[in-house]
Amino acid sequence: MSKKFKYPRESQVTMTELVLPNDTNTLNNLMGGRLMHWMDIVSAIAAQKHSNRTVVTASVDNVSFSHSIQLGNVVSLTATVTRVFNSSMEVFIEVWSEDILTGTKIMSNTAFFTFVAVDQSGQPIEVTKLEPETTDEQELFDGALRRRQLRLVLAKRMDPQEATELKSLFKL
Amino acid sequence: MSKKFKYPRESQVTMTELVLPNDTNTLNNLMGGRLMHWMDIVSAIAAQKHSNRTVVTASVDNVSFSHSIQLGNVVSLTATVTRVFNSSMEVFIEVWSEDILTGTKIMSNTAFFTFVAVDQSGQPIEVTKLEPETTDEQELFDGALRRRQLRLVLAKRMDPQEATELKSLFKL
Amino acid sequence: MSKKFKYPRESQVTMTELVLPNDTNTLNNLMGGRLMHWMDIVSAIAAQKHSNRTVVTASVDNVSFSHSIQLGNVVSLTATVTRVFNSSMEVFIEVWSEDILTGTKIMSNTAFFTFVAVDQSGQPIEVTKLEPETTDEQELFDGALRRRQLRLVLAKRMDPQEATELKSLFKL
Amino acid sequence: MSKKFKYPRESQVTMTELVLPNDTNTLNNLMGGRLMHWMDIVSAIAAQKHSNRTVVTASVDNVSFSHSIQLGNVVSLTATVTRVFNSSMEVFIEVWSEDILTGTKIMSNTAFFTFVAVDQSGQPIEVTKLEPETTDEQELFDGALRRRQLRLVLAKRMDPQEATELKSLFKL
Amino acid sequence: MSKKFKYPRESQVTMTELVLPNDTNTLNNLMGGRLMHWMDIVSAIAAQKHSNRTVVTASVDNVSFSHSIQLGNVVSLTATVTRVFNSSMEVFIEVWSEDILTGTKIMSNTAFFTFVAVDQSGQPIEVTKLEPETTDEQELFDGALRRRQLRLVLAKRMDPQEATELKSLFKL
Amino acid sequence: MSKKFKYPRESQVTMTELVLPNDTNTLNNLMGGRLMHWMDIVSAIAAQKHSNRTVVTASVDNVSFSHSIQLGNVVSLTATVTRVFNSSMEVFIEVWSEDILTGTKIMSNTAFFTFVAVDQSGQPIEVTKLEPETTDEQELFDGALRRRQLRLVLAKRMDPQEATELKSLFKL
Repeated sequence: MSKKFKYPRESQVTMTELVLPNDTNTLNNLMGGRLMHWMDIVSAIAAQKHSNRTVVTASVDNVSFSHSIQLGNVVSLTATVTRVFNSSMEVFIEVWSEDILTGTKIMSNTAFFTFVAVDQSGQPIEVTKLEPETTDEQELFDGALRRRQLRLVLAKRMDPQEATELKSLFKL
Repeated sequence: MSKKFKYPRESQVTMTELVLPNDTNTLNNLMGGRLMHWMDIVSAIAAQKHSNRTVVTASVDNVSFSHSIQLGNVVSLTATVTRVFNSSMEVFIEVWSEDILTGTKIMSNTAFFTFVAVDQSGQPIEVTKLEPETTDEQELFDGALRRRQLRLVLAKRMDPQEATELKSLFKL
Repeated sequence: MSKKFKYPRESQVTMTELVLPNDTNTLNNLMGGRLMHWMDIVSAIAAQKHSNRTVVTASVDNVSFSHSIQLGNVVSLTATVTRVFNSSMEVFIEVWSEDILTGTKIMSNTAFFTFVAVDQSGQPIEVTKLEPETTDEQELFDGALRRRQLRLVLAKRMDPQEATELKSLFKL
Repeated sequence: MSKKFKYPRESQVTMTELVLPNDTNTLNNLMGGRLMHWMDIVSAIAAQKHSNRTVVTASVDNVSFSHSIQLGNVVSLTATVTRVFNSSMEVFIEVWSEDILTGTKIMSNTAFFTFVAVDQSGQPIEVTKLEPETTDEQELFDGALRRRQLRLVLAKRMDPQEATELKSLFKL
Repeated sequence: MSKKFKYPRESQVTMTELVLPNDTNTLNNLMGGRLMHWMDIVSAIAAQKHSNRTVVTASVDNVSFSHSIQLGNVVSLTATVTRVFNSSMEVFIEVWSEDILTGTKIMSNTAFFTFVAVDQSGQPIEVTKLEPETTDEQELFDGALRRRQLRLVLAKRMDPQEATELKSLFKL
Repeated sequence: MSKKFKYPRESQVTMTELVLPNDTNTLNNLMGGRLMHWMDIVSAIAAQKHSNRTVVTASVDNVSFSHSIQLGNVVSLTATVTRVFNSSMEVFIEVWSEDILTGTKIMSNTAFFTFVAVDQSGQPIEVTKLEPETTDEQELFDGALRRRQLRLVLAKRMDPQEATELKSLFKL
């Protein structure tokens, strides 16, 4: 932890994939599991670049798949670390799919993955803090607390009554 | 839709995988993305067996990874359809990992995936209803409504005030 | 070898696979080699669960492929240990293939694979005995001796005249 | 079927593979199922070159694995068509493994795979006959009848009493 | 070809890959062939985005591998179209490799791949021109003519005496 | 280095591959990057057999792709070491593709890859010399010097004026 903090752009990663036959179902649509596999790799790389540590996936937030991605499409995934909590990092992933022949580009998904940085014996280890620079980054940073409470409540590791940030989501 | 309904056990699927080098990170732990890829395949098969239709992944609920799975471990995933909502099906997945040399078996994860049955032109199509038989199946069936509301609220397709079932989760 | 013996059901394994494009030939049929690869994995896992040891494939009995399995089919393989001979185990594999749209399920193959349990230096090591429970398991247990003699005769490690069990197969 | 017959050397195929981490078990030995997958591909190619047809695997004769093949070894497989029976072809496969650092080469396996040539609708179709040239090829050609009878007896499609060629194997 | 021309940045693509066990040799170094496979995919995507056409690889210029890339490293490839010649496009690829634990980033390779845009029958088809914006892009654009002559001379499709641009490389 | 020299035939390697769906683009043509991946493996094996050492890819000469290879085609690659320079070896690769149904065989590519033999710490190590036997081998041996100079000039590690052998290529 030589640095006091890092900016999100320092660890931002873009990954580009071509949808191949083995990635699709019988309707020639990209299977959701393959996309989640790519999401995990790109966000793990971002978390590793931020922390300079090996990381393990701790949780995946609710992901919804509203647009189908076709065989032959180009899928581009961008991962940005949004906030650091001691040894864990939340990463935001934006997935775009592009049809080559028409050039049409659609934002097909967004997701939040959380990783824990570990040392060589697999024990959690504290990581460098994150300092948001842009308004978007600040918004993601602020929302991270609320999403963290939802994760803890769903994992039954926090009493819903204590999830003060989360309550705002439900306008209570 | 020849049948009026089907039981969960009629479409239950078990998948077994061996953790190979390319599935692991530098600590020899199974990567989360590979596990989600397997979860998607096993639950899609269950949804396809229930509906006798091609299915597409609609959403994945929050998944947390609390136990690491090692290189060489045997991973066993069981998928059970929990409830049908018109053209969509919720599937529950239980993941067990086993260490061969010690015979130790750990339940490493549970997850809920939702699929939509589609016809050959990719349009949603209604599926056979599900009838729970056991107490566990009835409990999963009942909880499905609450989880569905949480998905809709998170996807901003339902007003939290109307999520009556969900509120019980937060003991409101 | 803490236990005196184990039952076949204690190590029985079910594996489910979806036939993907790269698994098929130009007629969209599952290639025999891919199926044998899956057979080897599922039966090795059963042998490992029975013995709590690393195992190596020792032999594969004659396998015939009479039904073609199509792209998109769900293939389900069940492996059951049939008998233990010192450090080797015979495993019986039943392969079912299912067409999702019609729900038709066909038993496409059966096979016998033999494995040797080895210690960390790769040397054969004795394994826990197997105790058949059901009539089917008893029948597989009894036939194992005859199949073993055929393997030894074919590998030229037994004189056909001494293969007393095998002779019954040829009604001599 | 423009030609009256073809020689074995006209369709002989050599395939070379490097043993990679995902092909091995925890002892760094090549898994039997991966080797059978390679055997199926190389022999299917030989059968396709001989018949100029798409082929499907019909059966695999008993294969035994007596030598372990290590991670990093070079595996070389040679497939030769041994005899044609109407629409089916028997192919002989020889597997050699080589340790790069020592240059030691070991013949690790031999196997017989049988394929059926099919037309575009998947129906069996007659193929060009095979004419052995060398003594080795003649011996493989002669033995093919005996191995075919064993396959039919094991598949319960021939009465052992009628397997006249096979009886010679058992010196009866 | 709706547009008169496009800028290089409109089709620039970045791809990020994690070096996994199966990508490496016995010294845990990334194999050159895997890297070329990635180079081909990232540059084909750039050429496809520029042309809105399916493209086929026409040639690869001399590539040298001076730095080894290790297992676990993050490899990042950026592809930029440098010039268009009727139906063919030259693409420049820069490969960076990063060690996660130290954060050290090395430019390990550069390469030039050439692609031809084709219509649905596989025939070459003219593509939108490219307009360089920056000094670097202008330099790559200018050098493209010289590299093209070298390709033609090496493929024996141009007389070295006529390769006027190329001669300047050899200071003749 | 027990031997004074080796002949090219002692390390010649043939590799055969079947073009599968995931190897092709949307026109069902083999992707160039997959072919280069195969070229690298087959030529690395030849270099390893010649040197009895682990080898790393040092460079790839200009490769042009003039014939498309189709899905289902059989691709056969032969690699021959052409010359040794201290610790580096040049390998010549010939790629043939065959259409199964017509039996048509086309030589689709040739390429030159260069490898460096390394010891266990990754340091270059001198290898056994190569002695050409046939006229073809002698020609490849002689041309190796010229190709090496082109590589060095292109990598800016040799002054074009000193590339005496290379000049002959340009008939200067």
